[in-house]
Amino acid sequence: MPRLIESTKQRIEEIFSQLEKIGNLGSSREEGFTRAAWSNEETRGMEVIQRIAEKAGMKSYWDGVGNLFLSTPVGASETVQVGSHLDTVPHGGNYDGAAGIVAGLDAILQLRPMWEKLKRRLELVIWRGEESACYGAVCKGSQAAFGLNDPSILGRTYLGQTLEEAIKSQGFDPSYIQERKPTLDQSRIDSIAAHLELHIEQAKRLETDGIPIGVVSSIRGTIRLRVEVQGEANHSGGTPMGIRYRKDANLAMAYMQVALHEECTYALEKGFDIVQTVGVINADEDYNKKNPLVWENALTKVSPFGYFTLDVRSNDPRFLPNYLKTAEEIIRKKAERYNVEVRIERLLSLEPVERLDPTVQGILESACRDLKIPYLVMPSGALHDAAVVAGVRKSNGTSIPVGMLFIPCKDGISHNPAEFASSQDIARGAVVLSNALYRLAR
Amino acid sequence: MPRLIESTKQRIEEIFSQLEKIGNLGSSREEGFTRAAWSNEETRGMEVIQRIAEKAGMKSYWDGVGNLFLSTPVGASETVQVGSHLDTVPHGGNYDGAAGIVAGLDAILQLRPMWEKLKRRLELVIWRGEESACYGAVCKGSQAAFGLNDPSILGRTYLGQTLEEAIKSQGFDPSYIQERKPTLDQSRIDSIAAHLELHIEQAKRLETDGIPIGVVSSIRGTIRLRVEVQGEANHSGGTPMGIRYRKDANLAMAYMQVALHEECTYALEKGFDIVQTVGVINADEDYNKKNPLVWENALTKVSPFGYFTLDVRSNDPRFLPNYLKTAEEIIRKKAERYNVEVRIERLLSLEPVERLDPTVQGILESACRDLKIPYLVMPSGALHDAAVVAGVRKSNGTSIPVGMLFIPCKDGISHNPAEFASSQDIARGAVVLSNALYRLAR
Repeated sequence: MPRLIESTKQRIEEIFSQLEKIGNLGSSREEGFTRAAWSNEETRGMEVIQRIAEKAGMKSYWDGVGNLFLSTPVGASETVQVGSHLDTVPHGGNYDGAAGIVAGLDAILQLRPMWEKLKRRLELVIWRGEESACYGAVCKGSQAAFGLNDPSILGRTYLGQTLEEAIKSQGFDPSYIQERKPTLDQSRIDSIAAHLELHIEQAKRLETDGIPIGVVSSIRGTIRLRVEVQGEANHSGGTPMGIRYRKDANLAMAYMQVALHEECTYALEKGFDIVQTVGVINADEDYNKKNPLVWENALTKVSPFGYFTLDVRSNDPRFLPNYLKTAEEIIRKKAERYNVEVRIERLLSLEPVERLDPTVQGILESACRDLKIPYLVMPSGALHDAAVVAGVRKSNGTSIPVGMLFIPCKDGISHNPAEFASSQDIARGAVVLSNALYRLAR
Repeated sequence: MPRLIESTKQRIEEIFSQLEKIGNLGSSREEGFTRAAWSNEETRGMEVIQRIAEKAGMKSYWDGVGNLFLSTPVGASETVQVGSHLDTVPHGGNYDGAAGIVAGLDAILQLRPMWEKLKRRLELVIWRGEESACYGAVCKGSQAAFGLNDPSILGRTYLGQTLEEAIKSQGFDPSYIQERKPTLDQSRIDSIAAHLELHIEQAKRLETDGIPIGVVSSIRGTIRLRVEVQGEANHSGGTPMGIRYRKDANLAMAYMQVALHEECTYALEKGFDIVQTVGVINADEDYNKKNPLVWENALTKVSPFGYFTLDVRSNDPRFLPNYLKTAEEIIRKKAERYNVEVRIERLLSLEPVERLDPTVQGILESACRDLKIPYLVMPSGALHDAAVVAGVRKSNGTSIPVGMLFIPCKDGISHNPAEFASSQDIARGAVVLSNALYRLAR
């Protein structure tokens, strides 16, 4: 086993040394990467993987919007897929997405001697444009494959270019998205026997607990709010305490946050899956440019205005909307209590993928046990392309069975030049993936 | 009485109609005023008042830094003063300071038939540069009169000009400040029998409670902190709740604020004088330019950094530092509890003027009762020139007896073009002032 991981690690480092030259913002990895959705850099990254796969005998298929499918060349009708993405956020790292592609490619190549004996084809999928940072929409490529995008995203811009123009610039056809037409025909969708994705955890639970593999049980849904609180500016020295005289936006927001945190703690104690984060208080640079009201706060004023964001996630689709109802009630009650006006805006609402496929999860766990690699069964906090695939129905009404693996990333950091996953950890993931692919395809 | 106030009101409107043409930012009052410290506009405003006073027979004295003393022409050695200032913050209003000058002038002029019979001279003082907005230092003129400024303020700039240059530009001598040399000689200081100031409240207690006059009992001291909280950025979806995984700056700040508010409420219940304000959370535009760390917060991140300001005021000089010690302990304990780093910076510490002169306060109250004008005895939350005068000692070791009156201002607003006090309210104040001046000088 250590020798297997060592040789895998060397191959993975070779592939990364090629990827590191694409979209890099400086000569060293630490200076970060920008490979935007449907940019030349994303395409060049995909071509690097394509060349390696084709050299090893795999076959390529670019769908209508430019997702790339790299398959083993055998004639079996059913496919076991492993996928992820190569695009990055601006000034991001080379592991969010790329780790899954490199590990997936290597996992398939590890099985090369067995390709002809397998009952199913193996397929590496490189989805386009997973990150929302560039056109304000997530998982654009994987959603396009199944006709799931909202067509209005084509008009959104990044660096002055619309998404529609970007797709055309890479030689692909935005009309699939315009018409909500899947790029994959139904027979191709029906032939997907299983779909796997390996991804960096983007949090530090594995690192904190010293466990090299996470087997993902579910993908949390998320509801996101922006809460705006309107108070009234008054002199801090002359205005007596109490709501007869003060309408203090900052004070009301503090009580809202504490009450929300207590509610979240209570939900955890009752056994619900939940994470809740007030990520931004008055500190969204773009929002402040558009809404300069927040600059009217001053050290010697009772606060006239403030806002915060609330991100609540759970893997329980019944609990999440109920919790949000309670959260909104808490916010309104505290606003009333502290004599301020409140406006709650729902920014996003995404259903949880309550449970990834139990059989596939079992196979991933078996692979870990087989390889004596410790693992943790855990929910995914972030959304991934695998969640899109998990939501797809075949003609017979069943879902595509989907499984996900997490590997640790340094300090839990992602979307940042400091993003890092060791080749050792990626190699361990690739070995587990390979074992699972074999179990699913044999 | 109504007729007295009506005629006073007319005279006050006449003086304001002249002042409104100086430093005005548009043709209507509502467009605001800028009369910076030692600007041409401040000087011109002072000259308007000087002309009216001299026309009525008063005598002028400009001290070394350009404070203006306008006295009744009688030879008595002792003086009863009424003072305030004519400078404004940039884009401020025409009442903060000016209301006190106009009311003070009119109060002296009302007594003109009695000037020769009074035992003491009456003197209107127009202090230079009370506002801190321009050179980052408060009550610069009144402090200069008594040699109290920190000389380093001479190097501070406003619109590229140092304070030293500004003083010279108006024909005055900054060496008084440089050498901490009082512009008033000791015999002049010793001759001040009492000093009064009328000012707009800059809060809305009088307005809220429907009371036309505040008799100020004390001037609150203030201690101001900036609290910086360092957390750690982590993915909001993947990071479990709890301090094993999260170092959440925003959450820690909310608990700090709530605990501070509870401590303040407790102090009020115990009968201490206190107001406490968290005026700014992450929303200081200049600070954010210099410390862009705060922009690293994001909706989907556990918050890595935040800051807030705390302004605590009390008229009790023993209570204030003790409370601040407790407040700092609360902040540190919550930081420890929520696993974040904290840095507390003390921005300002000003001693309270615990008690304005009880005799003068009594005279102001008698004047109100005499005139059947309802009044409220209240602390001043803001600092004023009168507080500087109250801190001065005469050669015999006694303080200058100081009293202050507040009048309501619309919605409690000041330092803003919307700042407004009605001529009715100013006239009522002038009538009280005049009555009190008579009692003090007869």
